[in-house]
Amino acid sequence: MSNDPLVVFTPSGKRGRFPKGTPVLTAARQLGVDLDSVCGGRGICSKCQITPGYGEFSKHGVSVHEDALSEWNGVEQRYQDKRGLKAGRRLGCQAQIMGDVVIDVPPESQVHKQVVRKAASARVIEMDPATRLYFVEVDEADMHEPTGDLERLARALREQWDIPAIRADLSLLSKLQPVLRKGKYQVTVALHKSHNDTVARVLEIWPGLHESGLFGLAIDLGSTTVAAHLTNLETGEVVASSGIMNPQIRFGEDLMSRVSYSMMNPGGDKEMTASVRDALNTLAEEIAKEAGIDAALIVETVFVCNPVMHHLLLGIDPVELGQAPFALATSGSLSLNARELDLSVINPRARVYILPCIAGHVGADAAAVALSEEPGKSKDLVLVVDVGTNAEILLGDTTRVLACSSPTGPAFEGAQISSGQRAAPGAIDAIRIDPITKEPRFRVIGSDLWSDEDGFEAATEGSGITGICGSGIIEAVAELRMAGLLDDSGLIGSAEATGTDRMIAEGRTHGYLIYDATDQGGPRITVTQGDIRAIQLAKSALYAGARLLMDERGVDKVDRVVLAGAFGAHISSKHAMVLGMIPDVPLEKVTSAGNAAGTGARIALCNVAARVEIERVVGEITKVETAIAPKFQEHFVAANAIPHKTDPFPELAKIVVLPSPNFNTRGDDGAGDGGRRRRRRS
Amino acid sequence: MSNDPLVVFTPSGKRGRFPKGTPVLTAARQLGVDLDSVCGGRGICSKCQITPGYGEFSKHGVSVHEDALSEWNGVEQRYQDKRGLKAGRRLGCQAQIMGDVVIDVPPESQVHKQVVRKAASARVIEMDPATRLYFVEVDEADMHEPTGDLERLARALREQWDIPAIRADLSLLSKLQPVLRKGKYQVTVALHKSHNDTVARVLEIWPGLHESGLFGLAIDLGSTTVAAHLTNLETGEVVASSGIMNPQIRFGEDLMSRVSYSMMNPGGDKEMTASVRDALNTLAEEIAKEAGIDAALIVETVFVCNPVMHHLLLGIDPVELGQAPFALATSGSLSLNARELDLSVINPRARVYILPCIAGHVGADAAAVALSEEPGKSKDLVLVVDVGTNAEILLGDTTRVLACSSPTGPAFEGAQISSGQRAAPGAIDAIRIDPITKEPRFRVIGSDLWSDEDGFEAATEGSGITGICGSGIIEAVAELRMAGLLDDSGLIGSAEATGTDRMIAEGRTHGYLIYDATDQGGPRITVTQGDIRAIQLAKSALYAGARLLMDERGVDKVDRVVLAGAFGAHISSKHAMVLGMIPDVPLEKVTSAGNAAGTGARIALCNVAARVEIERVVGEITKVETAIAPKFQEHFVAANAIPHKTDPFPELAKIVVLPSPNFNTRGDDGAGDGGRRRRRRS
Repeated sequence: MSNDPLVVFTPSGKRGRFPKGTPVLTAARQLGVDLDSVCGGRGICSKCQITPGYGEFSKHGVSVHEDALSEWNGVEQRYQDKRGLKAGRRLGCQAQIMGDVVIDVPPESQVHKQVVRKAASARVIEMDPATRLYFVEVDEADMHEPTGDLERLARALREQWDIPAIRADLSLLSKLQPVLRKGKYQVTVALHKSHNDTVARVLEIWPGLHESGLFGLAIDLGSTTVAAHLTNLETGEVVASSGIMNPQIRFGEDLMSRVSYSMMNPGGDKEMTASVRDALNTLAEEIAKEAGIDAALIVETVFVCNPVMHHLLLGIDPVELGQAPFALATSGSLSLNARELDLSVINPRARVYILPCIAGHVGADAAAVALSEEPGKSKDLVLVVDVGTNAEILLGDTTRVLACSSPTGPAFEGAQISSGQRAAPGAIDAIRIDPITKEPRFRVIGSDLWSDEDGFEAATEGSGITGICGSGIIEAVAELRMAGLLDDSGLIGSAEATGTDRMIAEGRTHGYLIYDATDQGGPRITVTQGDIRAIQLAKSALYAGARLLMDERGVDKVDRVVLAGAFGAHISSKHAMVLGMIPDVPLEKVTSAGNAAGTGARIALCNVAARVEIERVVGEITKVETAIAPKFQEHFVAANAIPHKTDPFPELAKIVVLPSPNFNTRGDDGAGDGGRRRRRRS
Repeated sequence: MSNDPLVVFTPSGKRGRFPKGTPVLTAARQLGVDLDSVCGGRGICSKCQITPGYGEFSKHGVSVHEDALSEWNGVEQRYQDKRGLKAGRRLGCQAQIMGDVVIDVPPESQVHKQVVRKAASARVIEMDPATRLYFVEVDEADMHEPTGDLERLARALREQWDIPAIRADLSLLSKLQPVLRKGKYQVTVALHKSHNDTVARVLEIWPGLHESGLFGLAIDLGSTTVAAHLTNLETGEVVASSGIMNPQIRFGEDLMSRVSYSMMNPGGDKEMTASVRDALNTLAEEIAKEAGIDAALIVETVFVCNPVMHHLLLGIDPVELGQAPFALATSGSLSLNARELDLSVINPRARVYILPCIAGHVGADAAAVALSEEPGKSKDLVLVVDVGTNAEILLGDTTRVLACSSPTGPAFEGAQISSGQRAAPGAIDAIRIDPITKEPRFRVIGSDLWSDEDGFEAATEGSGITGICGSGIIEAVAELRMAGLLDDSGLIGSAEATGTDRMIAEGRTHGYLIYDATDQGGPRITVTQGDIRAIQLAKSALYAGARLLMDERGVDKVDRVVLAGAFGAHISSKHAMVLGMIPDVPLEKVTSAGNAAGTGARIALCNVAARVEIERVVGEITKVETAIAPKFQEHFVAANAIPHKTDPFPELAKIVVLPSPNFNTRGDDGAGDGGRRRRRRS
């Protein structure tokens, strides 16, 4: 056995013997221990900090003496004096191994840090971003060997960091020489190593050691909202999150109306492209300001979006997405320069990655949900539903994943609802109807109080009570059904049939009065028969899409359901089930993934291998097109009933007993086509 | 032996047997015969035209019967009716082999056409451009297999043309869908296959078969003149050539004054960059107009230029090139998008290739000269001199090539000469001095007549006689020397010493009067002692640079000299030799290569392998830096005499007997520092 000192690294447990005098960083590299270094062992970046352990380590069979590491040298001392090291810490590149030692690598010194995604989830994102910092010493220009500065920088990166080849934009080239001179030929470069390019790109260069960090934006570009997470690319920390309205709303609330706008107005697509790009610049500016960083430090942006937003972001007329066969101009992932998208606030050489689209109606946002929720890694059969104006639906387990989109329409977002509004202060977002008194109580966004609690009026004085939002209308319809005010065909009962004055006649149909402030000049908030029909259409489309995937998979039920999307986070599982939005599963098997698309974007931003992964996964997903599936219409009609005409909901029955009134006084089946039949008979 | 028919292709001589019914194009491809096709054998592009030969071909041992090829089919007949084929021609993709046959592939049907470079040279450029046209049939969009249009185009190119992978800019993506629809999924794409990228770029797409050709620009971006050759990338034909003044002249006549402008004026480099890019757009617009083509058909541009112009074109401040160690920002070749250089007139996705620089003072123009003149392939030792404000000098043979640049200054271009002017109508560009009468006769640009010929006055009435240009001043100095009016030290004799009134006193020195129109308010054109000194400085620098390379190579003489550069074409070899601009060789061994840099640019434009070649060659060239070579100064001083102080010129002596006057009346050596000595003595 060698007499060389034994070094044990924790937490990895990797161990090996090294000659006395070996720097800890060198030992770590040789053992493949994940110990960071930007300056390459020059004692200036401090990324390689380690904590030696002293004393007896019976677990490792090591006894560590006080002189196990070399004494502080000048470089380490200078760093300590200038910047300070945490107690017990040493610089791994300076401290040399002199005897057996146990070395702990603290989390912040690891390159491949594990970043917890969110409190509710055990899953982590492993930091492995495409763009990293490298400190290099470049040879000075030499007349006898006249290569260019870029070529000498390339050589330094090859020799000092094993980077085989680099490229640089003209804008980088134009600053290369002054920066090299200013840094006395010591510079830090931000190098972008794409997963589909063997040549690394120099995105930025700073004289000396750059210590202000490196940032990326993960952007979920929705039809209604654009949400961005500004992420530190070294630590994975989200340093700021921000969202703005998608300014394209003025061209059309939903996607198809934007496609129509483009069809009807020559150059309309270009207007929409310009408006969303402007908004992205505004968003980047605001989020950088909020985080207190220079926007030029943002060197990467990842986008997830639906196919129409995808095309409009890229400057492609989305007209083909408005009609069968819904052909995408490109379905693959895209790696672009940010300036190709007119993103002018962030670093001028920033890179953009856009996740692949799954199909003409199943976009990069669905791919991001797949990346975040990983249905393909699920042992039980999981249905992932990203609820929005268009619902993206994924069904799968380790054997196979299927995907479709279903045109739910905007009802779930409060649009096309008589008292509907966006989720904003003043909107009713939760409601309960007493099954005995049939009286409602509700909450509005901006206050946690129910309307029958003390202080509600004061708490809502500022916002008022202005309407009902998406989650509110879902709860309202489900509550009406549970309170026996709505039959399974979706008909609202009259005041006579239900025995409550809350039921008000509206032409030949009835409505339910939630709130009336007309005497004070305020709004009158009701749920009308028309609202019920709109929700029925939306939920039928969603359910039919899920059933189509289940047919394709050959199953009648799923093991669990994940509700994704910003909206998914606010839906009450029980109410969604009563409504028959989703297939029947035990209530505890319905979970919310929050903004799964946004999380997918963050994963792709922080981990370059995830880009390879999702590109592979998307290629393997079975795409199901709802628009041309004959069974879709059949499922759609059957799903019109609340919760369903034919499918049993045994799990729902265990927790809720639904009354069985029948408000059909005309003897028809009360389905959506009742009106037509009525006309025929009269 | 097989009974299959034998096919012999001419001029290649390739032969093989193929089953009856094999299309000629298929046979050609299997044998590796160079037969073009853009449409891939669909009978629409007509690029694969061939000429079958009938009768006895004893040379090939083949007897060809009338029915050796299949009869005209419908496709071929339709083509014939619509467009017409030359007599005897068939479409190679339609005509099938039915019996033994001899097939001639006419030059215009060859992909790798040989393009004669210029009448005076036997060398040819083999057509193998980076960008070519491909006609493809793309699968229509299919909802059941929802890939993007770009992905289906990629598949079509892979399956129909063996193109492994493509990429496309957003601007191409945005037009992809309408073009595919318009062409009913049959389109022609211009694909750019770079020598340093495995992924081909789609530069342009047209519905159906594109027949308006594809063009490229070869641009020699000089300090004074920007010259462009518009070249058909299919045929290699130069369809138009045009040149404009480099507008940067207003910032400084020579390169170093432009570098100074940048040093003294913050943002000055950006002004110069913008001005040259503007000029390039103007040039592209004019040349396309001249050729009558749509400028959007220009999909490639190749640039050659000196290092300062290189940096100013790229938007890099050239300040480092103004001082030792003359560091280039980048020395490697560059492959760029034209729009990165703000080239907005040509195709928006056009590619730019810039040849590598050899060193801080030896630019991509010198690399282009090396590509054109191929000193590394010369069996005898050749000195290539590209004469300009800065002279680029190459010395080499098959064993080794050396390069340097030498700061000749602008005297050779007529600048800093008392009566000097640019080469423009009215400028004296040739002069003879009678050795007996000492009287001059001369020619001016714009007329072929000598000044003592009838009609000279009428012929020059329009232009006038305005000054003396670069080749004129060289001839004037050499003629003065041959007429005994100038001694070998460069001193001009007085009227008394020479016996002619043409010698006029100018202060303490003398001048030679060529032309005097002052009595008519016109100019007085003289060669002054100062002019002689300026030419001596320039020619000494040139000769010293050549000698430095010869020293490095360990030789005292070279086998031949090539004068390159637009200016090289107008220098009389004999006068250059009398002046001692170039080393002594037999006069017939001095040739002019014309604009060798421009030719190099054309080669790199037409043949992508030449780009690989020149990048390799530049890496192997030995760079010699004149600014730091101690012997340079020594050579420079010795070269001050006319033709030379110490080097013998035996070849020159065979054709010219130089008089040996001595006009030094003061006893000093008449060298350039005589003035200083004079002051010391007085």
